[in-house]
Amino acid sequence: MNKKGMLVIISGPSGSGKGTVVKQLNRKDFALSISMTTRKPRAGELNGKDYLFCTKEEFVKIRESGGFLEHAEFVGNMYGTPKEYVKNQVNEGKAVILEIDVVGALQVKEKFEDSISIFLIPPSISDLYSRLKGRKTEDDATIIRRIKRAKSEIEYMQKYDYIVINDDINEAVQKLHTIIDSEYLKPSRNQNFINKILGDDFDVTTVLFGTNEQIERN
Amino acid sequence: MNKKGMLVIISGPSGSGKGTVVKQLNRKDFALSISMTTRKPRAGELNGKDYLFCTKEEFVKIRESGGFLEHAEFVGNMYGTPKEYVKNQVNEGKAVILEIDVVGALQVKEKFEDSISIFLIPPSISDLYSRLKGRKTEDDATIIRRIKRAKSEIEYMQKYDYIVINDDINEAVQKLHTIIDSEYLKPSRNQNFINKILGDDFDVTTVLFGTNEQIERN
Repeated sequence: MNKKGMLVIISGPSGSGKGTVVKQLNRKDFALSISMTTRKPRAGELNGKDYLFCTKEEFVKIRESGGFLEHAEFVGNMYGTPKEYVKNQVNEGKAVILEIDVVGALQVKEKFEDSISIFLIPPSISDLYSRLKGRKTEDDATIIRRIKRAKSEIEYMQKYDYIVINDDINEAVQKLHTIIDSEYLKPSRNQNFINKILGDDFDVTTVLFGTNEQIERN
Repeated sequence: MNKKGMLVIISGPSGSGKGTVVKQLNRKDFALSISMTTRKPRAGELNGKDYLFCTKEEFVKIRESGGFLEHAEFVGNMYGTPKEYVKNQVNEGKAVILEIDVVGALQVKEKFEDSISIFLIPPSISDLYSRLKGRKTEDDATIIRRIKRAKSEIEYMQKYDYIVINDDINEAVQKLHTIIDSEYLKPSRNQNFINKILGDDFDVTTVLFGTNEQIERN
């Protein structure tokens, strides 16, 4: 019985652990959303796996036709999430995972009906600070900027469908599975089953009072 | 961090297995909804455990004041689900389980904001028939009536929040846990955490550039 899938938008402040969680979220009914970009491939990056690489002209054409769920420019390069790819995967029953920043997440949520949005957040701002500091990849000025941005991003927390407090990474991953498993039980994703049972022509009277031959056939 | 609970309405046709599933659904954050009735207690039945027993006058008074989520009369006795009890348990964070017929379920869903509704259904009408027949408690005329009623009840399936196909009892119970666990992650049930983190006065600048003493205090 083919179920319909969903776009799973995973977001949260920088340092909330969304990248790590997504990396560990492996399931058989799952697909990663692939970004399209005008940036040149780096060594080892594969077209169709890491990114869909395209020219600026191709990107603009898709953007103009409304073909991106969201798009942004970053140090002169364009990035976008192609709607068509996500739609096909969802129709095939997949849970398509899209890891994205807070502002982008809410844009995508509005544009894609079959989406669920999950906000990942550490237990406290102090925990968020410890993680950013612990990475040792950002200088103090960047950490201050990220914490300030996080404080404004959590204002949007209530607009998400689910909130996952990322205290322990394994528990957080488990909670994402729980959400996705549960969402697969929504009627809108089980239309095939609903149609089948609504059209079920099982005839109880024949089964109870028909000939044995008829009973066998049922 | 106190979460808000929910009313879990479990429904489905006669023979869908809702009674069996509810009996196996044990969890620490869980409470069973108790019906109020004007029926006399049977031997061994306890007030406040099996039912809340009351007089006809008491029942009518609560009903007139809108104190029931649903109520019905059955062979001269009145039965109702008291709203106040459910509300208190939900505010304490409990998942209150209410097993109820299909028509009652949709009434309750409309009356109680913090509710989720689950429709339990065997994989096919033929399976439903086998279960009703297998019980050996109903005669053929009753089985025919129940199958016919089931066919009209499944028309309402799409109005429920979730559909659980009861093929295997343990799997069905597991799916109910998944739904409840997932619902506990909704923002509306985590208002305490949201308020806490929105009011978090962690000051990153002081932590980074304050005196050691100040850092210690944070």
